[in-house]
Amino acid sequence: MKTLNELVSKIKEKNVDVEKRVILAGAEDLEALKALKHVYQSGICEFTAVGKKDIVEDNLRKLELSPEDFEIVDASDEIDCAEKSVRLVNSSGANLLMKGLIKTSTLLKAVLNEEWGLRTGKLLSHIAVLDSPVIDRLILLSDGGMIIKPTLEQKISIIENAVQVAKKIGINEPKVACIAAVEVVNSSMPETIDAAILSKMNQRGQIKGCIVEGPLGFDNAIDVNAAKIKKISGEVAGRADILIVPDIHSGNFLGKSVVYMAGGNIAGIVFGAKVPIVIVSRADSFENKFYSIVLGLLAN
Amino acid sequence: MKTLNELVSKIKEKNVDVEKRVILAGAEDLEALKALKHVYQSGICEFTAVGKKDIVEDNLRKLELSPEDFEIVDASDEIDCAEKSVRLVNSSGANLLMKGLIKTSTLLKAVLNEEWGLRTGKLLSHIAVLDSPVIDRLILLSDGGMIIKPTLEQKISIIENAVQVAKKIGINEPKVACIAAVEVVNSSMPETIDAAILSKMNQRGQIKGCIVEGPLGFDNAIDVNAAKIKKISGEVAGRADILIVPDIHSGNFLGKSVVYMAGGNIAGIVFGAKVPIVIVSRADSFENKFYSIVLGLLAN
Repeated sequence: MKTLNELVSKIKEKNVDVEKRVILAGAEDLEALKALKHVYQSGICEFTAVGKKDIVEDNLRKLELSPEDFEIVDASDEIDCAEKSVRLVNSSGANLLMKGLIKTSTLLKAVLNEEWGLRTGKLLSHIAVLDSPVIDRLILLSDGGMIIKPTLEQKISIIENAVQVAKKIGINEPKVACIAAVEVVNSSMPETIDAAILSKMNQRGQIKGCIVEGPLGFDNAIDVNAAKIKKISGEVAGRADILIVPDIHSGNFLGKSVVYMAGGNIAGIVFGAKVPIVIVSRADSFENKFYSIVLGLLAN
Repeated sequence: MKTLNELVSKIKEKNVDVEKRVILAGAEDLEALKALKHVYQSGICEFTAVGKKDIVEDNLRKLELSPEDFEIVDASDEIDCAEKSVRLVNSSGANLLMKGLIKTSTLLKAVLNEEWGLRTGKLLSHIAVLDSPVIDRLILLSDGGMIIKPTLEQKISIIENAVQVAKKIGINEPKVACIAAVEVVNSSMPETIDAAILSKMNQRGQIKGCIVEGPLGFDNAIDVNAAKIKKISGEVAGRADILIVPDIHSGNFLGKSVVYMAGGNIAGIVFGAKVPIVIVSRADSFENKFYSIVLGLLAN
């Protein structure tokens, strides 16, 4: 796929017979509801809105939707809202949990509840899909939103989660680049050492379903010419589908740069729980919220 | 200034009476010489080429320049080349040192030589200037190329160096954003704590000549709307001229993203020695090399 827009046709192909459902936790958030309305009206999903009932109904009316057409679950406060939303995912077999007007930490605490939460035993990681106007393919990026400074073990899980999402969007044997400021192993940069280890673990069959290469620079991971000039061969260099970054800061900047320096788009989900979770920020555009919901439904 | 191209007219205004000179260490590098030729033919500088004389002369001829028109200093190997280039900066009063076909570490070792090097007692830091097609101003970024993981003290020097360069390109009281994945102080992210401290030190007059704000996210540092949505006020939010990043990886990705995801341009110099140093990579484009030389001459 070349653009995030193609995610929409992909999900429509897959979606013919199955009704998909999104649970929106904190539907007092008009902007989140607006993006969700657009996915709903594209015929991709139904949704349940959890939040203070009168405000939610008011929001639906503002968006020219009839409250009586939707399932609305009243919640007295954020903690109640988080618990009800998470329990609803389990009881209704919903496909996606979306954060609205609720603290991320409150929602994730409910997701991780041992009794009625959405744990699977896997690491929860954030996966972004970048749609740059000058790159002719979608590029996945992880983790720029969840794990602050992953250990080597966590990086393995981060790769495994990203590979699963890549497959869901049609990349069957994704090329994974563990990127750093330089493409050589440098003992003063532990990030390059982790990258080398992950690459070797992949060669030995310890990380499966993908080809892992590293350390690579950002340029020689995604650009064939940059890889050629640096004389880096192999299947991944210049052709990476997935970028694994050293920490949340570097990943976060890179993801946001697609929007704020390149004028492109980004979609993002948290993956590893029973269903994908969409955690968008107030500053995210309508498009980015919309594509994040579509990505989350595809990744389910 | 809105684009890197304006650096060229700026230096031409300033440059009327003074002859500027670049020392190219390792002039066996045809691509470096080609960028330098373009600066030379724009009437901005003279240059001295250091390297194996026969190869250098051959390179000049390939570029349709007459070897007899240029000062060429023969060097037997990389170490000789580095020492001769650095000594030449001192003896000839040159304005810029440029790395050609020579290891960066070899050149920097010569720069830092205590007897005949280019030390000033200041930290050497890397400063990039980003020219994104969707941002209406140039943005400085540091340090994505020199200091791997700066301490708080080093970050102060990094800011001071970047502020000096900003002033040279016409930004008189630069707005400095110390960026991180989030714009709130988070005790699990030391990067946000450093950012808060640097901002307060600036308020107390311990960092002068600029306005420092942090922690800020990348989006709310450079985009006024993103800052507004997050309700971050102050002079810097959304209007940053200088981005200070937590480490070399995050800065490196962000700099390269301007080129490889936004189709924009970047210029970069190492600052803090007696003269600026241009250290470009083989993978850098002709434009990026050209603009780096112009930036270095302006920053002198």
